[in-house]
Amino acid sequence: AIEHNEDLVYDYTMKHNTVAIVSDGTAVLGLGDIGPAAAMPVMEGKAALFKEFAGVNAVPIVLSTKDPDEIIGIVRSLATPFGGINLEDIAAPRCFDIEERLQKELDIPVFHDDQHGTAVVILAGLLNAGKLLKKDIRKFRVVIAGAGAAGTAAAHLLLKYGIHDVIVTDRAGAVYAGRKEHMNPAKDALAAVTNPRGFRGTLSEALVGANVFVGVSGPNIITRSDVKHMAKDPIVFALANPDPEIAPEEAHSVARILATGRSDYPNQVNNSLGFPGIFKGLLAVRAKSVNDEIKFAAARAIASVVNPEELNEDYIIPSIFDKNVVHAVSHAVAAAAIKTGVARVKDPLHALTCGCKKL
Amino acid sequence: AIEHNEDLVYDYTMKHNTVAIVSDGTAVLGLGDIGPAAAMPVMEGKAALFKEFAGVNAVPIVLSTKDPDEIIGIVRSLATPFGGINLEDIAAPRCFDIEERLQKELDIPVFHDDQHGTAVVILAGLLNAGKLLKKDIRKFRVVIAGAGAAGTAAAHLLLKYGIHDVIVTDRAGAVYAGRKEHMNPAKDALAAVTNPRGFRGTLSEALVGANVFVGVSGPNIITRSDVKHMAKDPIVFALANPDPEIAPEEAHSVARILATGRSDYPNQVNNSLGFPGIFKGLLAVRAKSVNDEIKFAAARAIASVVNPEELNEDYIIPSIFDKNVVHAVSHAVAAAAIKTGVARVKDPLHALTCGCKKL
Repeated sequence: AIEHNEDLVYDYTMKHNTVAIVSDGTAVLGLGDIGPAAAMPVMEGKAALFKEFAGVNAVPIVLSTKDPDEIIGIVRSLATPFGGINLEDIAAPRCFDIEERLQKELDIPVFHDDQHGTAVVILAGLLNAGKLLKKDIRKFRVVIAGAGAAGTAAAHLLLKYGIHDVIVTDRAGAVYAGRKEHMNPAKDALAAVTNPRGFRGTLSEALVGANVFVGVSGPNIITRSDVKHMAKDPIVFALANPDPEIAPEEAHSVARILATGRSDYPNQVNNSLGFPGIFKGLLAVRAKSVNDEIKFAAARAIASVVNPEELNEDYIIPSIFDKNVVHAVSHAVAAAAIKTGVARVKDPLHALTCGCKKL
Repeated sequence: AIEHNEDLVYDYTMKHNTVAIVSDGTAVLGLGDIGPAAAMPVMEGKAALFKEFAGVNAVPIVLSTKDPDEIIGIVRSLATPFGGINLEDIAAPRCFDIEERLQKELDIPVFHDDQHGTAVVILAGLLNAGKLLKKDIRKFRVVIAGAGAAGTAAAHLLLKYGIHDVIVTDRAGAVYAGRKEHMNPAKDALAAVTNPRGFRGTLSEALVGANVFVGVSGPNIITRSDVKHMAKDPIVFALANPDPEIAPEEAHSVARILATGRSDYPNQVNNSLGFPGIFKGLLAVRAKSVNDEIKFAAARAIASVVNPEELNEDYIIPSIFDKNVVHAVSHAVAAAAIKTGVARVKDPLHALTCGCKKL
């Protein structure tokens, strides 16, 4: 039956509820390039989170090659059993090209979680920060420290959401159009769309007058003084893990809103808020790809889980253990996939009830 | 920890009890070249058998390429999470080269079940046929119809076991050294070691005076008359599925011993007797490869499950539902792997108790 109608592979096999977690082990959180074998426990942990949070089956596929062409060729060839591809812990800038080319070649969603999962949760946090401060986040000045996978994806997502003034910094300072040192095609692309005021300077200098700091880089790169020089009501997302860009104890009294990547402080920016529901929603409608509208929908859904009456400086981001998150995200993602024409299942009711019930 | 001692990947990840079922969907039983998507249900069924019979986890990896170099490259690159590779439903003659080259390049067992699983169970059946008839099977004259994956592997395994007179036939008749038509490198290799009498002729002619017929080809290619012209006490393994090389009703009164691939007749030659215990045993000792001694051990173990007092013409092969099979096979395989130096775990007690208990 499948031979004659390949779409039936969703009905008759594991494809409808299974994703591949693909990594080459080159950028494992906190450990770096440790190779495929050592990356396995992280991928298994991720698979456990997929199952626990969303009921989605996930298979760790760690590859013993770092060559982008080989990785693309391999994933393209082994994609059949999977309803989606979660790229994981693949180092920048290779990860950008790999994801983009794979999404072009495959008819299932390809989602590099270190990029977009992080970006989605950052946007969710900013949405609630804006609600709390009663400000339009699109008018925020945002400085992102880190031009790797997360920083690059966050910059692009915030820009597409309508935040105009985004500056990304790396070890060489602000990324700007025309910079020559420490650039690559991904940073060139960033330079072309970010930094509208053509700012050239250090991270500390960039932060002067900024509304938002997003750190996705490394420990202790900003100071209390930097936060004090930000605009009124500074929003500090110091997400480096386990050691944030500024110690929470340092930042607490000067930042209006503080988020970290850690579970032992309020406002944990944790990818587990995103990827389980995102893939659950994509699978529920048998999506062919993932796009920005879907990411916005996921971010809004995460933000919406925080009850407006409970919203406060220490609660702009829901707990990863809040069961409402995956429900809200998966439904929002499924609806956005249908709306943007990337769903194989065209009837939203079918997708959102039968589809989700199936999982 | 794994980064600094890669063997720990067996201790800390799924590798110790997980195999990949790799197929390109080119030779699916009874269906042929139906492609990777349509092959998925077969691979999922195989995974279910691995789990049900042996407690071994198996992941279907169906590839959308038929190119041997690509398949080898892909499997080599994705092998890290797996303790073994079960190649499945890959068409001959490509399957021979793929398996051989992969086993050379990988440090885990690579086992094409359509070849060796079938060969092992055939040998198990012949061992018990020999016991029943009180004959040394190495003196049997064996005719194998079918020069595909199963026939080729069975011929080589029986030869290595010590059966001297093996003839393989295909649609062009007996394979012999010097034959020009319908040959390929795998058949050339067969011709070089089989057919010691240089027989040239049809399958019917080859069967005259033979002790054993093994059919791994297609329906209704031999007749009652062919069986009558075999030596005394003809042993007929008509394994084509669902329609054997001779209808069991036809063969029953003329064959002394009759085996088929079907579950509704006695003596079912079913790969499920082999691969679950074979991989369980290989995993228990973290084997680096698989070899003929291991296959012989598996065949003897399967045969040994039939109690000598119960051995009779209709019971030379145990039931696939006999729980003793996987126990006997896995222990025999683990011991053979240790004996032949391909086990990572060097202490047989550890391998056979702790190793097996773990699974």
